[in-house]
Amino acid sequence: MTLHPPSSLPILYSFYRSSCAWRVRLGLHLKNIPFEIRPINLLTEENKSAEYKAIQPFGAVPAFLEANSQGPALVESVAILEYLDETRPEFPLLPKDPSGRAMVRALVEAIAMDIQPVCQMRVLKYIGKDKEADWVSHFFKEGFAALEKLLEKTAGKYSYGDSITMADLLLVPQFYNGVRFAVDMSAYPIISRINSELETIPAFQAAHPTKQPDCPPELR
Amino acid sequence: MTLHPPSSLPILYSFYRSSCAWRVRLGLHLKNIPFEIRPINLLTEENKSAEYKAIQPFGAVPAFLEANSQGPALVESVAILEYLDETRPEFPLLPKDPSGRAMVRALVEAIAMDIQPVCQMRVLKYIGKDKEADWVSHFFKEGFAALEKLLEKTAGKYSYGDSITMADLLLVPQFYNGVRFAVDMSAYPIISRINSELETIPAFQAAHPTKQPDCPPELR
Repeated sequence: MTLHPPSSLPILYSFYRSSCAWRVRLGLHLKNIPFEIRPINLLTEENKSAEYKAIQPFGAVPAFLEANSQGPALVESVAILEYLDETRPEFPLLPKDPSGRAMVRALVEAIAMDIQPVCQMRVLKYIGKDKEADWVSHFFKEGFAALEKLLEKTAGKYSYGDSITMADLLLVPQFYNGVRFAVDMSAYPIISRINSELETIPAFQAAHPTKQPDCPPELR
Repeated sequence: MTLHPPSSLPILYSFYRSSCAWRVRLGLHLKNIPFEIRPINLLTEENKSAEYKAIQPFGAVPAFLEANSQGPALVESVAILEYLDETRPEFPLLPKDPSGRAMVRALVEAIAMDIQPVCQMRVLKYIGKDKEADWVSHFFKEGFAALEKLLEKTAGKYSYGDSITMADLLLVPQFYNGVRFAVDMSAYPIISRINSELETIPAFQAAHPTKQPDCPPELR
């Protein structure tokens, strides 16, 4: 596969199951930005190839390239979402007032810094298959409990009031990973309720791992 | 200690050695915002007291309260820095153009999501003292190598060009932790050079752990 040639559409380098790529897919779909997906297979370590590292220097997904751009690609999921929100203000992902923005960003960090990194693939590889379940259970429970506490103060229909915000784009992929690792998500009623609300929305359906071109057929 | 009463100054709930509290101290000092420090001792688990959890619902530092505010406090370090930058535009922590902002935020995330969380205190407690050194060495090396790769493209005198940005506020505390855990930081020449530059700046000296009211006298 040739990863480099520019496209007349923005390009998202993505892996169907990566929660970080999923966040950005959600942003693109919600903002109705046409884009081209270029799948990078984390399981075969395509992300560690020299070709991909020329795009993303340390081999992580997602990476984002504007239409007809020679790069450098934008990297790191929340940085890309902030960029999309600054360059495409339609369907804003953050409220207008600084306190509201700080609340939404705190929810984002409670997932992006306090839950996801400790249980990501490269950490679990190091932990080892035999200890993986206990590890994930411990840190997911701690993390989801903290997030639920924050949501007690901020949630309406969605994570922050009644409009979709950046926090919701992180909540859904993290919820999916909770289920994937057999965490009892009913222990977090606000998180669960918001996730159910969001699942009904077309942009959230389009960004789902099972709808991605690189999703194995047996999982669709 | 009574943590609640409002102050005529903004309040930062901080622990001298917490890299996340340190980031916010740096933002406050650089922007020349007078503030009151209220130390929260993570070693005695003061952060898990009901009194502190009324301020920060899951007991993490930092938390930030505006002057004369009854709350809720702002939580999560990068969310607080973004808030300070939006409410106090003097000494901006992000460049003006969206691509530049995305680059700085990518550097921020490369530290805040890819290095710090995997080696924070609550993770190391779970890992256990006997395995701590190997764990930290593995993930710090992986994380600093990735950061160094990004900096090859962005660094000038500082992390992004020749002006101090939010990325620098995260780099310095993370460098300190690298040294604390005996990582050979000379393997990352750009990170090391930028850290040395920043250490000479008064705001960086004022925010240092050894200058904090809760730093044990023997470490000053």
